[in-house]
Amino acid sequence: MREHIRKLKVELVKRGLDAFLALQNTRYLAGTTAAKAVIVPADGAPVLICSRLELDQAKREGWIRDVRAFSRWRAPLRPGERVSFCEPRQLLVDCLREFGTRAVGYDRGGRELVRKLRAAHAASYRELPELMLKLRKIKSKEEVTLLQRAAKIAMNGMRCAAESVAVGRTELEVAAEAEREMRIAGSEGTPFSTIAASGRNSWLPHASATRKRLKRGELLVIDLGAICEGYVSDMTRTFALSPTKKQLKLIEIVKRAQTSGIARVRDGMKVREVDRAARAVISRSGYAKYCPHGMGHGVGTEIHEPPGLAPDSKDILRKGMVITVEPGIYVPRLGGARWEDMVLVTKDRRKLLTKQP
Amino acid sequence: MREHIRKLKVELVKRGLDAFLALQNTRYLAGTTAAKAVIVPADGAPVLICSRLELDQAKREGWIRDVRAFSRWRAPLRPGERVSFCEPRQLLVDCLREFGTRAVGYDRGGRELVRKLRAAHAASYRELPELMLKLRKIKSKEEVTLLQRAAKIAMNGMRCAAESVAVGRTELEVAAEAEREMRIAGSEGTPFSTIAASGRNSWLPHASATRKRLKRGELLVIDLGAICEGYVSDMTRTFALSPTKKQLKLIEIVKRAQTSGIARVRDGMKVREVDRAARAVISRSGYAKYCPHGMGHGVGTEIHEPPGLAPDSKDILRKGMVITVEPGIYVPRLGGARWEDMVLVTKDRRKLLTKQP
Repeated sequence: MREHIRKLKVELVKRGLDAFLALQNTRYLAGTTAAKAVIVPADGAPVLICSRLELDQAKREGWIRDVRAFSRWRAPLRPGERVSFCEPRQLLVDCLREFGTRAVGYDRGGRELVRKLRAAHAASYRELPELMLKLRKIKSKEEVTLLQRAAKIAMNGMRCAAESVAVGRTELEVAAEAEREMRIAGSEGTPFSTIAASGRNSWLPHASATRKRLKRGELLVIDLGAICEGYVSDMTRTFALSPTKKQLKLIEIVKRAQTSGIARVRDGMKVREVDRAARAVISRSGYAKYCPHGMGHGVGTEIHEPPGLAPDSKDILRKGMVITVEPGIYVPRLGGARWEDMVLVTKDRRKLLTKQP
Repeated sequence: MREHIRKLKVELVKRGLDAFLALQNTRYLAGTTAAKAVIVPADGAPVLICSRLELDQAKREGWIRDVRAFSRWRAPLRPGERVSFCEPRQLLVDCLREFGTRAVGYDRGGRELVRKLRAAHAASYRELPELMLKLRKIKSKEEVTLLQRAAKIAMNGMRCAAESVAVGRTELEVAAEAEREMRIAGSEGTPFSTIAASGRNSWLPHASATRKRLKRGELLVIDLGAICEGYVSDMTRTFALSPTKKQLKLIEIVKRAQTSGIARVRDGMKVREVDRAARAVISRSGYAKYCPHGMGHGVGTEIHEPPGLAPDSKDILRKGMVITVEPGIYVPRLGGARWEDMVLVTKDRRKLLTKQP
């Protein structure tokens, strides 16, 4: 993924910046969770800043060679261990000076930090959170491979959840079985607290799993994901325990809405057209009032990334984007239903990264 | 926990502020994950801002009565559902105007947002991230109860991990068993990716669990935590698989260092004295070079909160603080060892929230 750094450099030159200071997108640029900051000069090799505590990890996991560690207090060092005894921002200032930086972009960070950097090294500092989001929207081959791995693990987690659904089980138990399966398969954790929402919880789109036991006559929404080297997956299925006809109908509508949305996914399509296609199925079924969210979102190193699939979206789908399509209907008393899969925009059309288990 | 709002109001008056805008500490102030922002006027009732998607959840979970929801696009509403069709910042501006706010503090947020607020409602806006951290440092009785619950769940998770340690098991399998146990007991997830680090991973303090299998002659560091209503726990144990004498010695040293640190914990003690007491044991054993981190940290709604236990700490321990004490030694090839428990500062002395299983 050294490619990320190459792409960023192209953007820096375009925008007349000498360097980029990443405080948020550090893993994306460095390939390790150990980086506190990454400085990428428009011309030259990037620098990874980390605490002494994570120095070995940064060297072992990351692809940036120039790793500089700080320790806020003096302490004896191991043979060969190189550490600066200073505040982390001193290392940042040293780098900016070394590169002779005049114009720095940064992704996000305390005003306080930038104020101090400015006092120590005169330059123009521009907050550019959109720059990294723009780069992250289009996934490289390696990124797609990781997203596919995360998607596959989520599918297995969902299968495991499905197998553990039974009247009398708690929502937490169902979530726990799915999470265990995903973890053993290599997931780093969950990108969000797994949702297993039954009965009155099912009509809260973001309910988290509770001690509530599954009962007959309830809908159960399970929404889960895995993480592979920082890339996340996201998938939802709705289960019905001895449901009424009206409840089954709800599930059928969200599935049809999803199919309709996914059919619109291709390079060059307006994102809001995908939202509209899915939403139209729900509206025609008379449930427009019970549909409070967008029909999906981009997914990558974060669970919710641009583009958001909503009526006010201005994005255009491009080859290499990975989005979810997830229509949902939430009717108090009747129940909630949502159906979600991950879709890769390909040259020709689309490819589902998660599939019906 | 309406007490949090009362305490915040006292601080606002002291600092001559009319209102506080929370963008980060929303769950702490509102008691729900559904709040996107909370505005607390110095005089008057607080307002919770949420997306339409999370309106029902905000009302069900939170203790703030005045809940205002936004939707960025026009859509049909359910009978009785009140939503403003606007950007979230419009609701913030409306509140600030309604309260006639002249001086607003805020915890943290995009410069961009505050720039737009300022353009729409003239007032002085002051970034005050330390204010909330200061309030959060001292835990109320209810907060201690939640931390105790999270600690108890972590202890059970650790017992479960211990039972699953065996040569040939993967680190991920050990982590998965512990996490499953904690989840079924009600944990909302893990406050950090559970560490199960064996052999060459054990000397990376922040290694995450991998597919590596446990082998004889290795140390295994397990560091885990649970989450109860947003309050987290943190606990570490080191296991030895057919260890050498030198490896056993390492574990013994971190345990002694911890005992020595914990013995200093009491109301009025300088935090750096706790660090010093633990660190001294390691230094006397000749391992000072292999000790790259502080001896603990505050814990609450985040896993790492002030006060940090380090040689440069300026904090004083106060009744109601909850900290971890966690000396660690990391020797390449030999292995890593860390021992961590949570300690509550009481009126008399201290109380361990996690204990040796």
